[in-house]
Amino acid sequence: MTKRVGIIGAGPSGLAALRAFESARKKGAEIPEIVCFEKQADWGGLWNYTWRTGLDECGEPVHGSMYRFLWSNGPKECLEFADYSFEEHFGREIPSYPPRAVLYDYITGRISKGNLRDYIRFRTPVRGVTWDGRTAKFTVTVEDLEKKHVYTEVFDDVIVASGHFSVPNVPSFPGFNNFPGRVLHAHDFRDANEFKDKDLLMIGSSYSAEDIGTQCFKYGARSVTFSCRGKPMGYDWPEGFHKRPLLERVEGNTAYFIDGSTKNVDAIILCTGYRHHFPFLPDSLRLETNNRLYPLDLYKGVCWIKNPHLFYLGMQDQYYTFNMFDAQAWFARDVIMDRIHLPPAADMTADTLEWRAREEEASTPYEEIDFQTDYVRDLISLTDYPPFDLDHVAQSFKDWKHDKVENIMTYRDKSYVSALTGKLAPAHHTPWMEAMDDSLEAFLKQ
Amino acid sequence: MTKRVGIIGAGPSGLAALRAFESARKKGAEIPEIVCFEKQADWGGLWNYTWRTGLDECGEPVHGSMYRFLWSNGPKECLEFADYSFEEHFGREIPSYPPRAVLYDYITGRISKGNLRDYIRFRTPVRGVTWDGRTAKFTVTVEDLEKKHVYTEVFDDVIVASGHFSVPNVPSFPGFNNFPGRVLHAHDFRDANEFKDKDLLMIGSSYSAEDIGTQCFKYGARSVTFSCRGKPMGYDWPEGFHKRPLLERVEGNTAYFIDGSTKNVDAIILCTGYRHHFPFLPDSLRLETNNRLYPLDLYKGVCWIKNPHLFYLGMQDQYYTFNMFDAQAWFARDVIMDRIHLPPAADMTADTLEWRAREEEASTPYEEIDFQTDYVRDLISLTDYPPFDLDHVAQSFKDWKHDKVENIMTYRDKSYVSALTGKLAPAHHTPWMEAMDDSLEAFLKQ
Ligand SMILES: Cc1cc2nc3c(=O)[nH]c(=O)nc-3n(C[C@H](O)[C@H](O)[C@H](O)COP(=O)(O)OP(=O)(O)OC[C@H]3O[C@@H](n4cnc5c(N)ncnc54)[C@H](O)[C@@H]3O)c2cc1C
Ligand SMILES: Cc1cc2nc3c(=O)[nH]c(=O)nc-3n(C[C@H](O)[C@H](O)[C@H](O)COP(=O)(O)OP(=O)(O)OC[C@H]3O[C@@H](n4cnc5c(N)ncnc54)[C@H](O)[C@@H]3O)c2cc1C
Ligand SMILES: NC(=O)c1ccc[n+]([C@@H]2O[C@H](COP(=O)([O-])OP(=O)(O)OC[C@H]3O[C@@H](n4cnc5c(N)ncnc54)[C@H](OP(=O)(O)O)[C@@H]3O)[C@@H](O)[C@H]2O)c1
Ligand SMILES: NC(=O)c1ccc[n+]([C@@H]2O[C@H](COP(=O)([O-])OP(=O)(O)OC[C@H]3O[C@@H](n4cnc5c(N)ncnc54)[C@H](OP(=O)(O)O)[C@@H]3O)[C@@H](O)[C@H]2O)c1
Repeated sequence: MTKRVGIIGAGPSGLAALRAFESARKKGAEIPEIVCFEKQADWGGLWNYTWRTGLDECGEPVHGSMYRFLWSNGPKECLEFADYSFEEHFGREIPSYPPRAVLYDYITGRISKGNLRDYIRFRTPVRGVTWDGRTAKFTVTVEDLEKKHVYTEVFDDVIVASGHFSVPNVPSFPGFNNFPGRVLHAHDFRDANEFKDKDLLMIGSSYSAEDIGTQCFKYGARSVTFSCRGKPMGYDWPEGFHKRPLLERVEGNTAYFIDGSTKNVDAIILCTGYRHHFPFLPDSLRLETNNRLYPLDLYKGVCWIKNPHLFYLGMQDQYYTFNMFDAQAWFARDVIMDRIHLPPAADMTADTLEWRAREEEASTPYEEIDFQTDYVRDLISLTDYPPFDLDHVAQSFKDWKHDKVENIMTYRDKSYVSALTGKLAPAHHTPWMEAMDDSLEAFLKQ
Repeated sequence: MTKRVGIIGAGPSGLAALRAFESARKKGAEIPEIVCFEKQADWGGLWNYTWRTGLDECGEPVHGSMYRFLWSNGPKECLEFADYSFEEHFGREIPSYPPRAVLYDYITGRISKGNLRDYIRFRTPVRGVTWDGRTAKFTVTVEDLEKKHVYTEVFDDVIVASGHFSVPNVPSFPGFNNFPGRVLHAHDFRDANEFKDKDLLMIGSSYSAEDIGTQCFKYGARSVTFSCRGKPMGYDWPEGFHKRPLLERVEGNTAYFIDGSTKNVDAIILCTGYRHHFPFLPDSLRLETNNRLYPLDLYKGVCWIKNPHLFYLGMQDQYYTFNMFDAQAWFARDVIMDRIHLPPAADMTADTLEWRAREEEASTPYEEIDFQTDYVRDLISLTDYPPFDLDHVAQSFKDWKHDKVENIMTYRDKSYVSALTGKLAPAHHTPWMEAMDDSLEAFLKQ
């Protein structure tokens, strides 16, 4: 009997899984029966932009954390699919930092030629997963939101690809109940125009703080104050930006910081990261981790050691994205198709602990990049995912880090060389700070 | 063996159920074993204010739809518990339109004296309910968010009291993806100060549109435009308010209405109501209805005819609130405790269809008030819930409707007579339009 495989989510990771099986099928292999459940009406995961926040038109939590005017925050050369170059998709090399709509076009372009869509049941959130040790099968409970029908299906293997940058981590601070203005998490940020002429306070010191802060500034915010609990971002901010330690409380419009300083602000954006959140999984199957490069309990960062019929894709903190998800998906596919035989649980655990020890040694961004490069390299060596020059990509990541430190307001104007085509990306026709229109048409215009 | 009863939600309706059983116990009856699951950290349902929107600190959808500066929109004399007057709680009569914090104090005051809290498992959302016809029991799957532990319990009867003004109905209009400002549903509205000096567009013509519109105006919005698909609200709005038919689209900041007129706006608030949403229930147990006075499938508006071990509280559109939830809870209790014997399903259905026919005849607010008055009267006649002068309350509702038409900006300055104490409420020390501080302390100050 053919195996049945359930995939949860049709974002880049879930689509990588579909692509992995499809690639095997095209090479003549007999593949399992596949069903992919996706709660949104379309594929693309976070890249599928919506103006909505909170709950969507079906009453489901809005998955999207992306916002208008979002541009890639890393060079496209670092995330390029090894089996589908930007050049192949666009017919030519494009600049290194595309806006969201362009990356969405690229991601979905790779998979829209075949009939992969047929595997996906859209508007179908997974509500529950249970494992029956007796039958060695999973029962997956889902709801068809259009038919308003709850049903279950049985699978031999389940791949969780539901993302982990969607459910916000939302701390509270004294005074928020009475703050006379908007307090929101980055997850609910959509349009920088709302904050024109405003004094903004951003809590956090990572990518969201940095990018939402620079973007609001670009679209006319009066000032941006970064407040963080740890080391501040190491950038030279232009006038209009302020750095503060952690917020202590707000009183009326006044923010008080732990060093005793104050600042009047109109809105507060909590750029405090996201949670790995799997309300549909029981404790025994549920990954518990913070956002880090090497979560435990996953062999090769993919396979749930306590029950190796369960797989997680894309659950790491991410330098590498699309190509890493591919490498993981190819690995999961090969385990499911019995091409890769897993070692005993104790050996898998020992392996993860070794990687974890290496992860903990990495203390600088460069070391982290090297760590994740080695992780992806290891994965790729195990399957037939097309190998590519990972050392070149690692160097591009380091150049990117360097460019950001050099000038955080202009790093998106740089160009990188593709590891696939060997070509240098053309410069964009407009510097990022002046490119107000982020549409695909405006970007691709020559 | 004692029956086990599961209650979903500890808002006013769920608390009414606890109070109903407690009242029977105090009168010497042996009551079932009760477990109430509440996803929030505290009781009070919508009345438990939070600044949060979207997803909460545990990644669960924020239940609260209430906002800062929310005052009762009906006279407190119309919602007074028959077994616990405002006078008993506050030691004196208070003005007729209290702000949220005062009503919260009243609701929770009634139940905080006993040990009802012990029945409630907080931070425990219900994830699934199934019915086993063989054992005639429900299995309820819940998650303890603090222990991060998913578990199940078995019950003979289940009471759904999860509310229906929490999951927004969020239509979209062309242009929202590119509107340069905030688009939000009333569910996510929190603080009117955010909209000071702004031109606001509100879609909808019911309570939320009316109240959020007047409130934003009170706190300094530049203009408020109401756009609705049906009959506009019949109020005389002061200068600064505009009435338009339904929105057709937005382009940039400009709203285009179906009559061809336009208006430039800074923010859009969708006051388009809520959905009955029970993601934890299978089709066979799930109430499907819009917001109306008499949903079908519920005998006496409470008992799920297709499986009379399942009960719903508070699922109607609401003139009556707290006292109606009580009347329903007392009825559910008596069915569960075998004090009331249900007729055969066909008779129950016939009864609901008669009520539905009457509901459909009611076409004016006064007729609707009479309809719901009769409904509550019928319920109260069936249990030992303390009877009170419902004709007096019905008249108060009509006076309220009249006062609103007379002046929508000042109706909250009126006083009403309690059906319980026979006393006229004192006037508030400050007209509502000038009462900027909505705290309990400010309101009760004499
Ligand atoms: C603001 C932001 C900006 C980013 N920018 C970049 C960038 O510039 N470059 C880059 O490479 N990466 C970026 N990322 C990283 C991003 O994580 C990845 O690019 C990618 O989207 C992750 O893919 P995924 O499939 O793992 O998860 P997601 O994209 O989150 O997709 C998960 C899918 O699972 C579905 N789903 C979730 N729960 C269920 C359920 N219960 N049932 C059914 N379906 C479900 C969701 O609807 C969604 O479609 C960004 C992330 C964020 C938050
Ligand atoms: C903006 C607004 C203003 C209002 N103003 C007034 C007013 O002025 N006067 C008035 O009388 N009425 C008012 N109402 C009407 C309101 O519906 C009632 O007052 C009352 O709150 C309804 O009580 P409830 O218990 O049925 O529902 P809710 O108050 O909604 O409580 C439901 C409870 O169930 C919990 N819950 C939901 N899902 C789950 C789950 N899966 N597992 C566990 N727990 C769950 C929730 O956390 C919540 O605590 C207002 C409503 C709104 C939306
Ligand atoms: N394309 C783009 O432009 C773009 C834009 C935004 C985001 N992204 C992507 O989105 C992903 C998520 O990035 P992110 O910045 O949202 O999350 P993140 O990288 O996980 O960072 C979370 C931040 O929140 C801080 N934090 C957490 N809890 C806090 C608390 N209680 N008080 C104060 N600070 C707290 C953390 O501080 P500590 O460091 O002290 O823990 C950290 O600075 C990344 O993959 C990123 O690349 C991309
Ligand atoms: N205490 C307070 O001050 C206060 C404040 C706000 C709310 N509340 C309470 O909250 C509850 C809910 O009130 P509500 O006003 O949010 O909901 P509601 O009474 O259900 O009204 C929903 C409104 O949205 C409109 N609508 C729905 N879908 C639409 C669409 N696609 N396009 C245009 N219009 C659409 C409806 O129009 P149609 O009529 O054409 O269907 C209706 O006007 C009530 O119990 C109310 O008392 C109280």
